[in-house]
Amino acid sequence: MMIHGTPQRTIREAADGSLDVDILDQTRLPFAVETVRLKACADAVRAIADMQVRGAPLIGVTAAYGMALALREDASDEALEAAHDALLAARPTAVNLAWALGEMLAAVRNRPRGDRVDAAYARARELAEEDVAGCRAIGEHGAALIRRAAEAKGGARVNVLTHCNAGWLAAVDWGTALAPVYVAQEQGLNVHVWVDETRPRNQGAALTAFELGQQGVAHTLIADNAGGHLMQHGEVDLCLVGSDRTTRTGDVANKIGTYLKALAARDNGVPFYAALPASTVDWRLTDGVAEIPIEQRDARELTHMTGRTERGGIATVRVAAPGSPAANWGFDVTPARLVTGIVTERGVAKASEAGLLGLFPERRA
Amino acid sequence: MMIHGTPQRTIREAADGSLDVDILDQTRLPFAVETVRLKACADAVRAIADMQVRGAPLIGVTAAYGMALALREDASDEALEAAHDALLAARPTAVNLAWALGEMLAAVRNRPRGDRVDAAYARARELAEEDVAGCRAIGEHGAALIRRAAEAKGGARVNVLTHCNAGWLAAVDWGTALAPVYVAQEQGLNVHVWVDETRPRNQGAALTAFELGQQGVAHTLIADNAGGHLMQHGEVDLCLVGSDRTTRTGDVANKIGTYLKALAARDNGVPFYAALPASTVDWRLTDGVAEIPIEQRDARELTHMTGRTERGGIATVRVAAPGSPAANWGFDVTPARLVTGIVTERGVAKASEAGLLGLFPERRA
Repeated sequence: MMIHGTPQRTIREAADGSLDVDILDQTRLPFAVETVRLKACADAVRAIADMQVRGAPLIGVTAAYGMALALREDASDEALEAAHDALLAARPTAVNLAWALGEMLAAVRNRPRGDRVDAAYARARELAEEDVAGCRAIGEHGAALIRRAAEAKGGARVNVLTHCNAGWLAAVDWGTALAPVYVAQEQGLNVHVWVDETRPRNQGAALTAFELGQQGVAHTLIADNAGGHLMQHGEVDLCLVGSDRTTRTGDVANKIGTYLKALAARDNGVPFYAALPASTVDWRLTDGVAEIPIEQRDARELTHMTGRTERGGIATVRVAAPGSPAANWGFDVTPARLVTGIVTERGVAKASEAGLLGLFPERRA
Repeated sequence: MMIHGTPQRTIREAADGSLDVDILDQTRLPFAVETVRLKACADAVRAIADMQVRGAPLIGVTAAYGMALALREDASDEALEAAHDALLAARPTAVNLAWALGEMLAAVRNRPRGDRVDAAYARARELAEEDVAGCRAIGEHGAALIRRAAEAKGGARVNVLTHCNAGWLAAVDWGTALAPVYVAQEQGLNVHVWVDETRPRNQGAALTAFELGQQGVAHTLIADNAGGHLMQHGEVDLCLVGSDRTTRTGDVANKIGTYLKALAARDNGVPFYAALPASTVDWRLTDGVAEIPIEQRDARELTHMTGRTERGGIATVRVAAPGSPAANWGFDVTPARLVTGIVTERGVAKASEAGLLGLFPERRA
């Protein structure tokens, strides 16, 4: 999608043929558009842990390239295992990470060392392209929901509420929750997005607002606290969020605060959809609240904020009372009973085991 | 309550006998403890509109003193009306403002001009003292709820979740939602408070965390998004919030985001209480969502944040993508069906017309 009118992706192989990998540094957005070069597996680990890349699909593809970068240095079984473990530990909640690493292991493990680098890059490239195609397909299935809402309103503006960033910046391109919005825009539908700020890391304010603005989609930034009020007053037609991990039963782990929006949606009869590729489904799990590990992050993400000063510099300020302890959970789990449907690359499923297996019959036990 | 070990109030008459009024400037907390002097009614209007004073009870008492300051300049009927209208317009949601202004009008309107100043100060003083006594009584009734929760847990730590600041900084002293916590602390109960940050103005991070820390109450700052996750995992024993306006039927207007916590409380079987003096009840209203006006404030409160730099200075930074529109509602309404009870100075009422009239029979039509 576009930044300053130029098509971009969040991750791509370096244009110089070096087999290095370039990522868009998302910790610098929206104030600076900068590329960071990954030259080794450790660079990929750090980029994931420090959230220079974030979003379940993009974390998966970055981890895949991290494996390729590791093999370029050392194609031994030991190095392969070490890279796998280091990348897996970089973020605990997103299941795409484990999925992509498994795909990479399967692609290279039984090959002779001399073939492993080529095989790894080839598979990482495939995963990236599959992500793009899958997100585009999610966009088309989800756009039909927006079209239906538009028809129900006689063509009046459709208001979508989203939380965090599950746009193209969370994937290689297109995104998950925002892909339907971009496809709806292509189709000429009148759509507007309420963008939750998404404390404490402000991915809504910094990333979602940025990418919607760059793409020319109508949007309004709101506090995370505001969505319930908007739904009470009929100002939200549907909620569309992404997911970091979804159980086979349809429980959706996503950015902390998603559950609160799902509760408000149910209380006000607003449809609530999660949009995600099949790689985000953890087919082993049946109880999201009990089984999905929830990452705890540095409390400083809550107590301090970084932004641009009037003079144009970047500054970090403490916004909380000095001396007060703080705690910072990264995700919560929305039980399937609150989820109207799951938008996947194969269509929209009911948020249930039967619904998901209906679209992905190859996952039947 | 205490700041740096010294008992304070949020508002008091100047010690020099000048009839000026000193307020604690809450826009400077938690980084600076500064007093601002109100010398004229316009100073009181500005202090309320700019949120140097905030919190329904404190807004009421400040408005009362604003009337007294106005009469000191000009004790005519015209000046009285003008002061009333200017103060009433300073914040639209808190009903205590209208209530306190009505009390002041009643106290001075039928007196000769020469007596009005004395009568106004006397009534403002009474309102301030009644607020302190009422909040203390709320604290005692609410502490019984905390004691019951402690007994149910065999004396284990009771976790209270609160939103925004309804502590002593929101009143003259003691507070509403936090008064039960302070009384529980006096009684030796083991209590800990989850403090919602409360975007966009961060009253939780800046004020609630500050006042609990100064008073030595165990607390942890969390993102507004985190409460649902905590309740899902049994980490919240009760919710206690304040209110800016409550209908006679028990619908509770409070800081934006309160409704989302009430939904999570119900979904997880956590009791949800609003604590408020009778002056916060708008006895004319029966449908909070339809009838309570919700203040919209400057979007800059959302897009910019102010805090302390590493070097100790105060700086304001833009945290949102430049060019993205933002919207900023100040309050939402929690329907009575989600409220377990209303803690008042006369005891705990069911959140219903019958419940509130049972405690306040003089309000029967």
